[in-house]
Amino acid sequence: MKKLSILGSTGSIGTQTLDIVKNNPDEFRVVGLTANKNIELLKNQINEFKPEAVGVMDEEKADLLKQNVDINVYSGIEGIIKIAALNEIDTVVNSLVGSIGVKPTVEAIRNKKNIALANKETLVTAGSVVMEEVKKNNVRLMPIDSEHSAIFQCLNNENVNDVNEITITASGGPFKNYSKAQLENVTVQDALRHPTWNMGNKITIDSATLMNKGFEVIEAHWLYDIPYEKVEVVIHPQSIIHSLVEFKDNSTLAQLSLPDMKLPIQYALSYPKRLPLNIKKLNLMEVKNLSFEKPNFELFPCLKYAYDAGNKSGTLPAVLNAANEAAVYAFLDNKIKFLDIHRLINKMMQKHNIIKNPNLNQILDVDKKIKEETQEIIENKVEITN
Amino acid sequence: MKKLSILGSTGSIGTQTLDIVKNNPDEFRVVGLTANKNIELLKNQINEFKPEAVGVMDEEKADLLKQNVDINVYSGIEGIIKIAALNEIDTVVNSLVGSIGVKPTVEAIRNKKNIALANKETLVTAGSVVMEEVKKNNVRLMPIDSEHSAIFQCLNNENVNDVNEITITASGGPFKNYSKAQLENVTVQDALRHPTWNMGNKITIDSATLMNKGFEVIEAHWLYDIPYEKVEVVIHPQSIIHSLVEFKDNSTLAQLSLPDMKLPIQYALSYPKRLPLNIKKLNLMEVKNLSFEKPNFELFPCLKYAYDAGNKSGTLPAVLNAANEAAVYAFLDNKIKFLDIHRLINKMMQKHNIIKNPNLNQILDVDKKIKEETQEIIENKVEITN
Repeated sequence: MKKLSILGSTGSIGTQTLDIVKNNPDEFRVVGLTANKNIELLKNQINEFKPEAVGVMDEEKADLLKQNVDINVYSGIEGIIKIAALNEIDTVVNSLVGSIGVKPTVEAIRNKKNIALANKETLVTAGSVVMEEVKKNNVRLMPIDSEHSAIFQCLNNENVNDVNEITITASGGPFKNYSKAQLENVTVQDALRHPTWNMGNKITIDSATLMNKGFEVIEAHWLYDIPYEKVEVVIHPQSIIHSLVEFKDNSTLAQLSLPDMKLPIQYALSYPKRLPLNIKKLNLMEVKNLSFEKPNFELFPCLKYAYDAGNKSGTLPAVLNAANEAAVYAFLDNKIKFLDIHRLINKMMQKHNIIKNPNLNQILDVDKKIKEETQEIIENKVEITN
Repeated sequence: MKKLSILGSTGSIGTQTLDIVKNNPDEFRVVGLTANKNIELLKNQINEFKPEAVGVMDEEKADLLKQNVDINVYSGIEGIIKIAALNEIDTVVNSLVGSIGVKPTVEAIRNKKNIALANKETLVTAGSVVMEEVKKNNVRLMPIDSEHSAIFQCLNNENVNDVNEITITASGGPFKNYSKAQLENVTVQDALRHPTWNMGNKITIDSATLMNKGFEVIEAHWLYDIPYEKVEVVIHPQSIIHSLVEFKDNSTLAQLSLPDMKLPIQYALSYPKRLPLNIKKLNLMEVKNLSFEKPNFELFPCLKYAYDAGNKSGTLPAVLNAANEAAVYAFLDNKIKFLDIHRLINKMMQKHNIIKNPNLNQILDVDKKIKEETQEIIENKVEITN
């Protein structure tokens, strides 16, 4: 029986995690939950899953909830961290969105919790610090992400030193075949129309810019201790092969399924076991075709920026992430155009003085500063050019 | 350092095995070799690899060779078995073709040798006996076969009880899109023109009838202790995905490479290690497309016969194999037509009285009898109807 805290339990990954808990009552028990401000849904979850404590990021909403439930309600980022470090739990599911997820991950690791990590920003922003803590505290960091779960399953019992290359697949997003001129004027609604995956808004925009894939390249580097020149990206519009690992004998292993986040979520929780999972079965004779294309780095420069940031390392990946985070929310608020996202990221990366081997506080300072500066540029409507 | 006997060293798998030995002098040493009658090539191999003893199936050729080399030359099936059971070796590569391969495999296992098995007929004909000996003698049986090597790599460190289904891929052979009328008159040359794999003659014909795939279904049953209803065949004309394993959470693992037998040969020898192998690298962006189709059981009934034989078990798979072996050689000798192969198999299977739980001698008796009877039908030009 694994005892869980689920950070971000009212989001897309959080609710699917709870479905898995519900379907496997002998395997998992929920001890802690956290939400940003959706306390209506959180209250329902409290009634159904009977956690011992919850955290709510929004202070006012936390106060409101306290009047309605008779369990401990903590608030703010300190409240989230408290839930991530509860004594009774052994595993933290981090499905927070954004760099807000970094500190709870680190605190959970320092408290010897295994991590099931959906929060991409944790490794993108603070990969070196997080992986050092993972080693020091001897905990397991499992990816909740179809691509890294695929890589994990392919590497199972293999020697990571035998790896020639990791290939991360990308659907290509909704704008795969667009021209630059077409991309100039895409709307938020266009960008939220992902061809294969049903995900939260932030990650869906990251998929449309291919920044999501760039993040995954950086995450793969940290998760599997593999140099960037050994991490490839291939466009695979059907999203059936979730990633591939090639070994030194030129044998390649791949993991496949119909696109459904329940699979990587459950595997992250059940590992080293597999549990039955009632998702639609892959039938290759129905799928008929799997196709592969080169990614277009010119049309989707975010992917290139991610490799750059990863290679130059230090605080640059934190800049990449912070500028992206500010820009994506501004795009979702209709404050900037789609292509401004990558222009803003490029601008912020260009002018940043990289701190080598930063500690967690330095990383979080850069994250905060870059977000503020990016927002300032957006609010002041300074012309954003490439 | 693994010490090897290679049975059938002058054939397609044998010569490729020797290439791998040559490229890995610190890993493998050749102690024994055997050939059918190609003593010219065997002599060259003796000079290059300096084995301690060799076996030659053909008695006259064995005598001829004895006059030309100063190592022990054994002859006949007893000679082959002697090489398979040499004291100094730990691993036997069985790349014999046909049911002649059964006895040497069993004798090698009884002498505690690990087996790298390319000889399909061993498991098709005598799967129950062979797997019992493998367990009893606690040796490792590694498949030399792209499909079963793929399955092995996918199952590595997974629990075989978690398997939902194994899917064996098939190129479909040279006649994939033929009509029944077209199949009536195909020539030996047509049948030897395999679209993706370069193999020996017998197995190339077996690929054209899909009997090879049927054999692989039976082998998968024995190798992985998996019921026939969990073994599927899918046509995949590019021969890039070599097989797939689906687990109970509906996650599927697959193994991929460009078609090259060196990979499964080397993996069977190097396991649990991987060694570098200089074969052409798979590039999915060059391959562009992987496609999948249902196999046509009506046009290629051999595949159906194999499932039937496997399910009914006992001596019926031995009948399937023996009738096929006799028929394929007759086809290669232009004595029968292509479609007569499956007609002969069907005829022999229909009239066979199955012996349940046969021992090795009973199996080998059936094998011999069925081959003789099939040859008799062929020689007497009895009309073969379906």
